[in-house]
Amino acid sequence: MAKSAKSTISGFIEFLPEQQLVLQEFICRIREAYELHGFSPIETPAVERVDVLTSKGGESAEREIYAISRLLGQQDGADVTDANLALHFDLTVPLARYVASYASQLSFPFRRYQIQKVWRGERAQAGRFREFYQCDIDIIGREQLSLLADAEMPAVIYDVFRSLTIGDFIIRISNRKILRGLLRHYGVDGDTSAASVRVIDKLDRHQQSDWKDVLIAQTTLSPEVVEHLTEFFFSADCSTAETLQWLSAHEAKADGDFALGVEELGAVVKAVGELGVPETHFTIDLRLARGLDYYTGTVFETLLIGYESIGSICSGGRYDDLASFFIDEKLPGVGISIGLTRLMAQLLDKNIVKPRASTPAKVLVTSLDKKHLPEYLNIAKVLRSANISTEVFTEKARLGKQLKYAVRKGIPLVIIAGDQELSEGKVQLKYLTEDFAQKDIEEIPLQEIASRVTEKLRELSLSWNAW
Amino acid sequence: MAKSAKSTISGFIEFLPEQQLVLQEFICRIREAYELHGFSPIETPAVERVDVLTSKGGESAEREIYAISRLLGQQDGADVTDANLALHFDLTVPLARYVASYASQLSFPFRRYQIQKVWRGERAQAGRFREFYQCDIDIIGREQLSLLADAEMPAVIYDVFRSLTIGDFIIRISNRKILRGLLRHYGVDGDTSAASVRVIDKLDRHQQSDWKDVLIAQTTLSPEVVEHLTEFFFSADCSTAETLQWLSAHEAKADGDFALGVEELGAVVKAVGELGVPETHFTIDLRLARGLDYYTGTVFETLLIGYESIGSICSGGRYDDLASFFIDEKLPGVGISIGLTRLMAQLLDKNIVKPRASTPAKVLVTSLDKKHLPEYLNIAKVLRSANISTEVFTEKARLGKQLKYAVRKGIPLVIIAGDQELSEGKVQLKYLTEDFAQKDIEEIPLQEIASRVTEKLRELSLSWNAW
Repeated sequence: MAKSAKSTISGFIEFLPEQQLVLQEFICRIREAYELHGFSPIETPAVERVDVLTSKGGESAEREIYAISRLLGQQDGADVTDANLALHFDLTVPLARYVASYASQLSFPFRRYQIQKVWRGERAQAGRFREFYQCDIDIIGREQLSLLADAEMPAVIYDVFRSLTIGDFIIRISNRKILRGLLRHYGVDGDTSAASVRVIDKLDRHQQSDWKDVLIAQTTLSPEVVEHLTEFFFSADCSTAETLQWLSAHEAKADGDFALGVEELGAVVKAVGELGVPETHFTIDLRLARGLDYYTGTVFETLLIGYESIGSICSGGRYDDLASFFIDEKLPGVGISIGLTRLMAQLLDKNIVKPRASTPAKVLVTSLDKKHLPEYLNIAKVLRSANISTEVFTEKARLGKQLKYAVRKGIPLVIIAGDQELSEGKVQLKYLTEDFAQKDIEEIPLQEIASRVTEKLRELSLSWNAW
Repeated sequence: MAKSAKSTISGFIEFLPEQQLVLQEFICRIREAYELHGFSPIETPAVERVDVLTSKGGESAEREIYAISRLLGQQDGADVTDANLALHFDLTVPLARYVASYASQLSFPFRRYQIQKVWRGERAQAGRFREFYQCDIDIIGREQLSLLADAEMPAVIYDVFRSLTIGDFIIRISNRKILRGLLRHYGVDGDTSAASVRVIDKLDRHQQSDWKDVLIAQTTLSPEVVEHLTEFFFSADCSTAETLQWLSAHEAKADGDFALGVEELGAVVKAVGELGVPETHFTIDLRLARGLDYYTGTVFETLLIGYESIGSICSGGRYDDLASFFIDEKLPGVGISIGLTRLMAQLLDKNIVKPRASTPAKVLVTSLDKKHLPEYLNIAKVLRSANISTEVFTEKARLGKQLKYAVRKGIPLVIIAGDQELSEGKVQLKYLTEDFAQKDIEEIPLQEIASRVTEKLRELSLSWNAW
């Protein structure tokens, strides 16, 4: 649990307004980046039929599902299907159901984003939430989907995290076919291969020295194969061009999957660069495995430089078939997901994000004298018409208390107007600096309020927009 | 159920992307208007403890609550309180719990907005949803709260619905104390008074001729009182100033509640005007009762002119005490709520809102030749850098099919570039008109793409932003 966040029920996080403002701004910027790349919003009900949710199988998912039922039992005339409803635990199963339901009304490739909460009845533990936001995009093809769709993912990731300004990041790219082909080349296939991939996925960011020991301890791979693998994973730590060249010359290229994986990876990486992601922000990393069996080709992860221990802040990959349970048509796709609630809790906890204000208001109009209320309300009206978020202090209180209120909420500008100012057609504009120690007063004519405040806010924007 | 909306489970609505884009834009504009007035966002978990949800009492609420439980029963080490959790059915009870929990960390008056889904296990019927968005604002005072807070509500409503551009609207304002005082003046008090208010609330927008009959049939009021009431409700149909004057001279002013209600109403209406709401957009309407016992003073409703049958599109009022169940302190408040899901379904159903596009993309970059992919991707990169939502057509298809794809999704601009154009450093910019019949081709130099597209979109903005 983030130290600055609250929760009344274990696993359900709740933010104070100053934190929620940042979360809200994050959601807006993520949405903007998704829309910039032509993804359309959809939203599915929080509630799905249980048979829909369990369609992909997997006992662990089933154990985490929250079923819903009427607190006081069935009402007269109530829908009997209510008994088989539950909260969605991800946005992928609902997407599959949605695409299958409306296939004839959608245009393919179908590019959708979906930012919603999901619920999982997980065991309560630090950093795990039972309710959390997922911010997903996917591109779904009908029967086929170009590798360019894969290349769009890092381009979107790049725009999202540049916009969030939470620090440097790197997008790691690999292709599952390479690892599968490599293992088969060394005689490892089937269940042993899948199990090894899961171990490699967990090893991922460990030191090279750990790899051999863990692989020998936790898999049934022979020491010889383990030797080949660790050599493979740790010799390719260079530029994407060099890595691709090295892969093309690798002895495992005799394996069809390996060769196809290298070809796909090359095409994706080339297009990622052409879409504008600089070489500094993405890399081929063959250690990246992504444990989910779901992925069949390109896979992605994103690390925040200096905070790699947080784990991936945005992951995803290519899959062969989205909705085979719901529709008799092959729907290949590629997607990524940001686990926003967990990310936000981590950013707050590590002080990477420091909320500055508990209100969107940029101006507080103080009340000195009840008889001037019409003027105060009019000032608020004028500022709001100029699109400046404004609050009027409406309660009875001395000016000192009103200023403290502004300071506490992080409102940078305060307007003060008593008999004298108003009789001269003026107001005082007080600027409460970031540390609230200094205060800066200037008198401005009433008719210039909107323009002067806009100007002042523009001056301040750097320090006040930063978090 | 709106004809243009879909649902897989009775009572759970789901929109197609073109509808969701409008819903999303509505949420953004509502949020902007709320923030313009200095309201801070909060979000509470969808899940609350059952005893919290039922704290305000009311059996009907309890019958509608959806409890949650693990599909496969309790896990080892699971939190036992899970057994007593349920989905919130409104945002007011969670607000009360939130304010009580964090009272020491919040600044009062506490101005919060909250835009979230709520769930009600209602009997399925037309226009009723079991999952729907509520968009609430409230101002909560500590021990006291100025009437100016009440006056802020119509100012926010005015900004919200002007921004949504769904047509003319009128905000109706009254004060519950007036009706209570009036009834007591005529000797009606206690349960009879409360029951009568509920009948009056339902009569509200009926013809004058209905009132007497219904009041006599459905209440225990004497014919004489019914006569007085209908005269009262239907003689005051004039300007706010005239209505206030007429009320101040009314015989019921001997009643303390009546007199106080008239005084409060006068103060609120005056401030509403000063906050910039024009007389054309609000009115005193004494027929407005608001059935909820919860409200104790000012009450609001908003009607869409020409579509009054939809009912109120934004309602609320003043209450004495938000959170007496959770905190030993009096927290008076005032708030309003927009039932967004129902509103959107009605707007779509009545064609007041006509979605135009199923994607935010404004430009489709077509693919004529695989060898030019780097150029196509680069064009997309340039357009996106200029903040223009862009999609690249990534699949193999003839140009005709690509244009049809753009038309179907409502993408207004298409870029076409083959060997010849690119060798001359140019592209074709095709404009697909609203009815998609006409097409307008111009050639533009590659380096002017972003500026020319921006210009073209500005020209088009009126027709394309309209819904």
